[in-house]
Amino acid sequence: MKIAPLSGFPEWLPDGRIVEQKILDTLRATFELHGFSGIETRAAEPLDQLLRKGETSKEVYLLNRLQGGDAQDAELGLHFDLTVPLARYVLENKGRLDFPFKRYQIQKVWRGERPQDGRFREFVQADVDVVGADTLAFHHEIELPLVMVDALSKLPVPRVVVRASNRKVAQGFYEAIGIEDVAETLRIVDKLDKVGPAAIAEMLADGVGANQQQAELALALADISGADASVADQIRGLGYSSELLEEGLEELVGLIEGANELIPGSVVADLRIARGLDYYTGSVYESTMIGHEDLGSVCSGGRYDSLVSDGKKAYPGVGLSIGVSRIISRLINQGIVTPSRKVPTCVLVAVNDEGERRHGEKTAMELRKRGISADVSPNSAKFGKQIRYADRRGIPYVWFATEEGEQVKDIRSGEQVSADPTLWEPPAEDLYPELIEN
Amino acid sequence: MKIAPLSGFPEWLPDGRIVEQKILDTLRATFELHGFSGIETRAAEPLDQLLRKGETSKEVYLLNRLQGGDAQDAELGLHFDLTVPLARYVLENKGRLDFPFKRYQIQKVWRGERPQDGRFREFVQADVDVVGADTLAFHHEIELPLVMVDALSKLPVPRVVVRASNRKVAQGFYEAIGIEDVAETLRIVDKLDKVGPAAIAEMLADGVGANQQQAELALALADISGADASVADQIRGLGYSSELLEEGLEELVGLIEGANELIPGSVVADLRIARGLDYYTGSVYESTMIGHEDLGSVCSGGRYDSLVSDGKKAYPGVGLSIGVSRIISRLINQGIVTPSRKVPTCVLVAVNDEGERRHGEKTAMELRKRGISADVSPNSAKFGKQIRYADRRGIPYVWFATEEGEQVKDIRSGEQVSADPTLWEPPAEDLYPELIEN
Repeated sequence: MKIAPLSGFPEWLPDGRIVEQKILDTLRATFELHGFSGIETRAAEPLDQLLRKGETSKEVYLLNRLQGGDAQDAELGLHFDLTVPLARYVLENKGRLDFPFKRYQIQKVWRGERPQDGRFREFVQADVDVVGADTLAFHHEIELPLVMVDALSKLPVPRVVVRASNRKVAQGFYEAIGIEDVAETLRIVDKLDKVGPAAIAEMLADGVGANQQQAELALALADISGADASVADQIRGLGYSSELLEEGLEELVGLIEGANELIPGSVVADLRIARGLDYYTGSVYESTMIGHEDLGSVCSGGRYDSLVSDGKKAYPGVGLSIGVSRIISRLINQGIVTPSRKVPTCVLVAVNDEGERRHGEKTAMELRKRGISADVSPNSAKFGKQIRYADRRGIPYVWFATEEGEQVKDIRSGEQVSADPTLWEPPAEDLYPELIEN
Repeated sequence: MKIAPLSGFPEWLPDGRIVEQKILDTLRATFELHGFSGIETRAAEPLDQLLRKGETSKEVYLLNRLQGGDAQDAELGLHFDLTVPLARYVLENKGRLDFPFKRYQIQKVWRGERPQDGRFREFVQADVDVVGADTLAFHHEIELPLVMVDALSKLPVPRVVVRASNRKVAQGFYEAIGIEDVAETLRIVDKLDKVGPAAIAEMLADGVGANQQQAELALALADISGADASVADQIRGLGYSSELLEEGLEELVGLIEGANELIPGSVVADLRIARGLDYYTGSVYESTMIGHEDLGSVCSGGRYDSLVSDGKKAYPGVGLSIGVSRIISRLINQGIVTPSRKVPTCVLVAVNDEGERRHGEKTAMELRKRGISADVSPNSAKFGKQIRYADRRGIPYVWFATEEGEQVKDIRSGEQVSADPTLWEPPAEDLYPELIEN
């Protein structure tokens, strides 16, 4: 049997999985505190739905039944995000869902990246979206990034700041300064961090026919950022105006002021953001983990006027997605977070000899009844060996049936006391593995 | 956009997902109480590993990168169970795992069944296994089915009884009565319920050259069942004996007596079980949910002497797998279990007018800080409409900022009282959606 890790398909040892599970539980609990319903969608979608946006076609994993022969089904592929499945789910169940529909979804997604790219081909995303029927109020554009800030602030990770822009501001501004091809302009400005302002000016000239002044204005817009209404003043200070631009500025200021009033320091305006602006129609969000900027945006999203439409009704939405595996991979691989033990077990019940195993099992059952994870020693070796068994796994307590009665030993301190399995309780911090930030 | 459910890929509405999530949480919590570590393995495995057992080849979904062209990777398929991935994971990480390695795994698996068969093609399995290095004590064959009985007893499902047999008993007995082709005999006896004893006798004559007496003895063995040591006496009473048979009987009685001493009524011996005996080497388990026998076995497994081997060392194991989706699908589709509400939300904070929305959001934040799920009304319609919004979702409480101060209304009883968002608590049973058995 040939054994090798598959590049791009991350897996964790049991201690790493404890870290991952705790993080997923925290995300889930926070999303539910905010009133979002959890759903799971099937891993497979019809290929034509996966390819609706065209440019992602390169990333899809196709499914074929090995023995399907000519009887293959309609072409299916694995979902590469959780937005396409949400759109399909909303349309399929529109008569049975209550709108605005607030849902979270934490699932694996797959992308058929080229193996040499070193990217994840299987990873977990955590999405929150709210989807309206026909209309969706602006205040959800303040609500949704704050759900993510709240969730991320509860994780053992460095602080995350959401950076926001607005499609109406960008489009309104570019049109006001006389640039017509907004989409191409956004694609070019998106490369600013990579190639620098001089190259961008050239590319704007070549790509959208921008003159020197237009290029300078586009670059000046991209330089604007801030955490309050002065951002709008800076943009207006560039000297251009339009109805769309004003509408966008009102939204952008509304977002920044509203968000920071509820959670100070949560959201800053950053007009450099261009990614996603070809798709989103209002607010757009990226976010950076302080000290881990090289990870790129760990949480992104925006407002779309029509997630999906059935021809009669459009379903506008706003949502964000956390790239969970990218964060967890960093935490585990750099040892930033480790669990307090490698197993869920709180108590190892020692076994004097095999004839007393049944007694030990009953002791473990009593502990479990009261929510204390307990395991019975797999062998009746010398107690020293059984204690080492616990120690190697980080199990804090070993339980003994001695001639003086039942006793429990904290193997970290060596303290051993008499105990009744129907009454004894560990300190709360020993009940479950906890995460330790190193 | 063409929308249709995909046959074999079950999905739930948000209320069904609450049922599923609660059941998955209960399984996980129980497995951890017993000291099992959770792991997740990647969805894809190399095809040659998936096909090691040959007979499952028809069920595999192959993966191909849509734009991979000639640069396809080694052939990959989606896992169709969680045992093949466990074997690979153990071998890949053998130097980093502690043995005996107790792991649980709750994940989706995929089978490329023919669409017309009406079977699930994507479904959730919940597995527990313990894997030893070189050796694994017999007592784990008592431990593992009891973990599942404990887990299933905590679910809102009818009682589940584990039925057990033992490979050594079957093989020892068939060999003692002079039947040589044990594997084929097991395959034939497995059809007993479907075709009846007369047809089985004929098939045994044709398939393994059994004479009338041998066929009658094989059928007599299959008729034996019971919950105590008398099962061994019945088998011995058929008049045959061998070392292997006696070893098997000792194990079978040890399992039945040990399991029922710890959890009365948990395990019965049933010598009719033939499935899996070609693969398992000791105890083998099936289980039936009382009143839902048509579902087939909802939890199966057994002992294998070598889950996997690296040539130098073999890794024996014992484990069971619950077909979670089959159970959940029954619970949801027959309405056996429903959640007490359709959303996680406990409190809807009403909004008088949009100018007061920020105040409502702060109220919700206070509630969430203390673990109370709260949502703010998406609009500032008349209060009657906002109450209907809560009622439609089953949200029990609506919070108002009135001229007399903050008040909270239980919309089921109509009772409305003054309340402080930093202090008020709902009764424990209203905090989360609960499952109601209908």
